Amino acid sequence: MAYDAALKELSALLGDALTLSKSDLDLHGRSESHFPPTPPDAVAYPTTTGQVSELVRICARHGCPVTAWGTGTSLEGQSQAVRGGVVVDFSRMNRVLEVNQADMDVRIQPGITREELNRELRATGLFFPVDPGANASLGGMAATRASGTTAVRYGTMRDNVLGLEVVLADGEVIRTGTRARKSSAGYDLTGLFVGAEGTLGLITEITLRLQGQPEAISAAVCGFERIGDAVAAVIDTIQMGIPMARIEFIDTASVRAVNAYAGMEFPEKPHLLVEFHGSDSAVAEQAEAFGAIIEDHGGSGYAWAQKPEDRSALWTMRHNAFYAILALRPGCRSVVTDVCVPISRLAEAVEATTADLEAHGVTGPILGHVGDGNFHAILMFDPNDPEEEARATAAASRMVERALKLGGTSTGEHGIGIGKRGYMEQEHGAAWSVMGRLKKAMDPGNIMNPGKLVPEPD
Amino acid sequence: MAYDAALKELSALLGDALTLSKSDLDLHGRSESHFPPTPPDAVAYPTTTGQVSELVRICARHGCPVTAWGTGTSLEGQSQAVRGGVVVDFSRMNRVLEVNQADMDVRIQPGITREELNRELRATGLFFPVDPGANASLGGMAATRASGTTAVRYGTMRDNVLGLEVVLADGEVIRTGTRARKSSAGYDLTGLFVGAEGTLGLITEITLRLQGQPEAISAAVCGFERIGDAVAAVIDTIQMGIPMARIEFIDTASVRAVNAYAGMEFPEKPHLLVEFHGSDSAVAEQAEAFGAIIEDHGGSGYAWAQKPEDRSALWTMRHNAFYAILALRPGCRSVVTDVCVPISRLAEAVEATTADLEAHGVTGPILGHVGDGNFHAILMFDPNDPEEEARATAAASRMVERALKLGGTSTGEHGIGIGKRGYMEQEHGAAWSVMGRLKKAMDPGNIMNPGKLVPEPD
Repeated sequence: MAYDAALKELSALLGDALTLSKSDLDLHGRSESHFPPTPPDAVAYPTTTGQVSELVRICARHGCPVTAWGTGTSLEGQSQAVRGGVVVDFSRMNRVLEVNQADMDVRIQPGITREELNRELRATGLFFPVDPGANASLGGMAATRASGTTAVRYGTMRDNVLGLEVVLADGEVIRTGTRARKSSAGYDLTGLFVGAEGTLGLITEITLRLQGQPEAISAAVCGFERIGDAVAAVIDTIQMGIPMARIEFIDTASVRAVNAYAGMEFPEKPHLLVEFHGSDSAVAEQAEAFGAIIEDHGGSGYAWAQKPEDRSALWTMRHNAFYAILALRPGCRSVVTDVCVPISRLAEAVEATTADLEAHGVTGPILGHVGDGNFHAILMFDPNDPEEEARATAAASRMVERALKLGGTSTGEHGIGIGKRGYMEQEHGAAWSVMGRLKKAMDPGNIMNPGKLVPEPD
Repeated sequence: MAYDAALKELSALLGDALTLSKSDLDLHGRSESHFPPTPPDAVAYPTTTGQVSELVRICARHGCPVTAWGTGTSLEGQSQAVRGGVVVDFSRMNRVLEVNQADMDVRIQPGITREELNRELRATGLFFPVDPGANASLGGMAATRASGTTAVRYGTMRDNVLGLEVVLADGEVIRTGTRARKSSAGYDLTGLFVGAEGTLGLITEITLRLQGQPEAISAAVCGFERIGDAVAAVIDTIQMGIPMARIEFIDTASVRAVNAYAGMEFPEKPHLLVEFHGSDSAVAEQAEAFGAIIEDHGGSGYAWAQKPEDRSALWTMRHNAFYAILALRPGCRSVVTDVCVPISRLAEAVEATTADLEAHGVTGPILGHVGDGNFHAILMFDPNDPEEEARATAAASRMVERALKLGGTSTGEHGIGIGKRGYMEQEHGAAWSVMGRLKKAMDPGNIMNPGKLVPEPD
């Protein structure tokens, strides 16, 4: 077995909290996406930062790879130990350490999930707004710079992490940031670790900004004849400064899937789903102003729901979309990919993608976070048909090239992992080798999640 | 003369755009703060990124320091060439390169100032909101991670820079970020250069987020018996999600100075100045809600002004404060310092500072961006009285120590430069040496603004 000496020392350190059982290795080798499984050599379940630090020191001495694991919901294979070694599962470091109500911040361990955190916050009148859909761990969300449906209003993880505790590649523990709302005191190390996908260190503590629970929430769904009309309505809304809390797009194929899956009867055309947060009167004013804008752009079937149960019904379409789409073809797998473009180019990017998928015979409903210019395609294939899988991945590849040509990025929120490393040079040019230089300075032994994000070391 | 060989090559490259005239060197050796002048060996006025790249290549070959200069308004000596070499003045690279109205972004050269940019944007219905007070260059604002009065609503430079073009320490030119609103594609290099104070490279182009000009603006001023009451009112306002565009605090000493300077008659007590941006009805609703909150906290003299001329009168107090304070003692100089703490600790930090200044006989009015927990003290001294200067700097030092103890940072917006490098280890611990490691990876010859921000290389 590889890394025998390291595993022996790790076992002495962690006891039962280091496992080599096949079922556990298999569980931590899988991915939610289409990548082949890569079981690690061991899985560690640390409970303290001190243990994580010792663990990394041992791995550093033996050149043993270390890959962090939250809930395993990343979509580009970020938590797969592609070079073996130890997967560090943070599920036992999942406590809320400190809530500061007046400052609207919270200090947590990385293993707590988004839903758990919001359950614990419920009585405080505060909530954590970033919502990538999956019930991911906050450590994973920070590491992949997650965002989701509410980023248009509340920002991404980049905007909501105030500070971190990080175990570096030599086992040293550092703290970045403070509880102050802003700082000009040196390099933004917090921002460097957020989105680094565990290649620079392991996040062992996070301080997050929180938001006040809104007094009122109002949601609506609305159909459009063309995606271009829907995007134009959103652009007008943003320019008028109407603060949307969520603004989601789902295409005709997705609507069809949801109707079939959930017995709904939405018209088969592109839809926007929108949500406003604020005071009763602010929400009412925003709903009215938005109504006028969508009328200008030929929107139809516009209706508001302020009661929680009505809102849930409206969001059913969005939340069910992923499962509804997979249910279109039982047994299929999918390349779940995302790109992000300047919003003025969004309609063009979506229309070109739709045409491309049709031309290449790929089934791939499209949905996304239209306020950010970010959209997803769920490109389905039969796992027993390599030719179809190749067509799906080729279509994903053309989506990226199109996004880059339009001034966008290869991924708005899913990250790089193993799925998108091949586009890094194209997107960043010489700046990609700068990332490699930073990686080498921080992890000269290349043990932190190797094989991801940066160029291979010389 | 030092760096003779480098200057000869630079002169061949730049011709008249390299100057060694004493008056120009003196002008680029000064600071707005209390640091002694440090004239560089030469001043360069490049007009293109290509020239900047060549200039840096030459300096790299000769180990000649390179320090960027915008408008010279930094407050911690960031643009002073403390080790000599070349100051690169970006005033001839001051164009707007591209406005994207639908995407609400703009690409600019770094030498354009904040006010020039907003003048150029006026007809577009958009504006750039970050306002540090001084009419600084955007390059300088990005390099020092500036913020100011509007950060509570629109964020700091960290939140408003989408992408950069940067000339690295070996002359290589890279681009960071895209025009997409968000990205998960690799390390956040944009965020690394923002706030690096020119120690990692020279910013030669910036893509900024813009905001829609608000339909209505409403401003008010309000007195409080105690700073603690004012802060409590602000905390309640934030928790209720009322979006303040600006919320400024000025202490009794500042009010006294403004009254004397501008012939105003504000009651001599702490004041809040607030501004709301939005639709007519939203602004009216916010003003009313805020009014109810300040009443709960004993605020008095609360009155709204929606007309531009009335608003200007209200903001006179804030904008005149710095000059009014200096006018208290003609001929004096000042240590202008800032710290930032969690807002729950702000009243305590301000009150302790006031008591400390009184105890040590330092005249130092306090004002600040209360929504961010950020405040400034203007600690005055007679330039011919070294003992008084020592007392002022000692008081500034205690402000920092107090801020760190309260969970805050040594600077919310002025940055490190030469003034606050001595606190970096205390604030960041081992993370400061991580900054040094990153600096060494990016600038092994230590030519980019040496003597600032990071530890001295071994």
